[in-house]
Amino acid sequence: MTRTIAVIGCGLIGRAWAVVFARAGCNVRLWDPVPEVRDALPGLLEATCQVSGDDPADMSRAHVFDTLEETLAGAEWVQESGPEKIEVKRALYAQMDIIAAPEAILASSSSALVASSFAGGLVGSGRVLVAHPVNPPHVIPVVELCPSPDTRPDVMDRAEALMRAISQVPVRMTREIDGFVLNRLQAVVLAEALSLIEQGIVTPQGLDDTMCHGLGRRWTLMGPMATINLNAPGGVVDYLDRYGPTMARLSDSAARGEAFTSRAAQIVAKAMPGPADVPALSMKRDRRLAKLSRHLIHDQTKED
Amino acid sequence: MTRTIAVIGCGLIGRAWAVVFARAGCNVRLWDPVPEVRDALPGLLEATCQVSGDDPADMSRAHVFDTLEETLAGAEWVQESGPEKIEVKRALYAQMDIIAAPEAILASSSSALVASSFAGGLVGSGRVLVAHPVNPPHVIPVVELCPSPDTRPDVMDRAEALMRAISQVPVRMTREIDGFVLNRLQAVVLAEALSLIEQGIVTPQGLDDTMCHGLGRRWTLMGPMATINLNAPGGVVDYLDRYGPTMARLSDSAARGEAFTSRAAQIVAKAMPGPADVPALSMKRDRRLAKLSRHLIHDQTKED
Repeated sequence: MTRTIAVIGCGLIGRAWAVVFARAGCNVRLWDPVPEVRDALPGLLEATCQVSGDDPADMSRAHVFDTLEETLAGAEWVQESGPEKIEVKRALYAQMDIIAAPEAILASSSSALVASSFAGGLVGSGRVLVAHPVNPPHVIPVVELCPSPDTRPDVMDRAEALMRAISQVPVRMTREIDGFVLNRLQAVVLAEALSLIEQGIVTPQGLDDTMCHGLGRRWTLMGPMATINLNAPGGVVDYLDRYGPTMARLSDSAARGEAFTSRAAQIVAKAMPGPADVPALSMKRDRRLAKLSRHLIHDQTKED
Repeated sequence: MTRTIAVIGCGLIGRAWAVVFARAGCNVRLWDPVPEVRDALPGLLEATCQVSGDDPADMSRAHVFDTLEETLAGAEWVQESGPEKIEVKRALYAQMDIIAAPEAILASSSSALVASSFAGGLVGSGRVLVAHPVNPPHVIPVVELCPSPDTRPDVMDRAEALMRAISQVPVRMTREIDGFVLNRLQAVVLAEALSLIEQGIVTPQGLDDTMCHGLGRRWTLMGPMATINLNAPGGVVDYLDRYGPTMARLSDSAARGEAFTSRAAQIVAKAMPGPADVPALSMKRDRRLAKLSRHLIHDQTKED
């Protein structure tokens, strides 16, 4: 049976979600509060596909509607990608909880707000969760699934199954935590990176090279835990026996929030392409991420 | 003119260096203090090439010698990959500083010891630096170049030029810091990862998925600074204005050295393949890293 998905809010993230769901064969119903955005959507979706190498013909399964009511009709999953403003999300979820079929799941792309903050107190708070993608989800597959204290376990099970069915990679969290998992990992790296740069120990380019020609490659194939499991003959326990004290000492001396200074920002900005180049570089990033994704799928298939 | 390189210490790292130098067309002179290791080297180097897809014929440029004196003869660069024991390195550098030609550079693969700790006080301490690779350097190109307070700037220039000439990616540091850059970044990620796992918020597999199907992919193409430069319309300064306070808050609440517990190690170990699988998985890792490296080079060439 073909699944029906509603995508609410059609900025960059919502459009990327539309591509994810449509290429997986779902019927996709799209809505954005801004009429001009709705009108532009068919062209914008085609452009998104062209950058990533997705087939624009898949977009024949995506349809734009004029009202929230029409859009949610028959949807088993609602992927909301509206602004990260708590009052906007509260109003929207209150409305959607009334409109959507009782069995429909309401999932937010929020990176900053936990579900309890905008769904607490709703009749259907048990069917609301955060399904946080990485920008943009059509070329990066991970999706963090974070329940509120109200979210029902069967809703989490269905969320995980749906994400696997559409070839995303769900990461199921057990409870709410500020920043979820991904941005907590990103935050500690940014703090230490900015500190090393501001101290003048390494340039922004050198910092990026260390990651993209070094650490990032192992982490792209395996993640940090599988990486250390192979970095000592006796596996992860052996690794932590040998190197745990050193790593603990390094993390104890690492930078924290005080590293996010405007001076560090200025040093990095000077070394980076300026804002005028951001749109073209973002397209290039998405194109390269799509190719990397295809390489990794092909490679994994050959290894298995 | 063909470069002559001496590789001192021929464990996994030394052998990978031999492949790096030989495939770049250098004459490679190899020595290990253990006679059995020296005898086994031709076979071990061929096996290394087979895993990574390097041409074993390149190894005709690699020759094993019986003494340190013979090995250093005519070498412009000495890549030392001995044990991470300060007394061993001190004795070795004292000896090499006497034997090696005055213009030769002595570079250590050390990940844990800074150059001043084993070269301080030598006549030639100005030509000693750390050239720290990521394991294994024939499939991961980054090399951290870290001077001691004695290391001469022209030695750093030559080190950087040599690494570029052999297609590695040098990251030049301006001064010594515990852990260099790469392991400082790794340490903060490991601390936060182990903490999230021990708190039960995410499984080891979920943590790894977050990185390898998410954050790691962007960082493999661009590094953390170029990543945030594209994550706000106005570039990195705009990003840090918008998200800096959130990232600072997340890093302030992140785990530190106390996260390296044996309980966390046990939880991760249970979720990972056991030590018996480490050799086969390490070969698979190297094979996949080699393929990833070829993909990235090909992709970069097409984009440029």
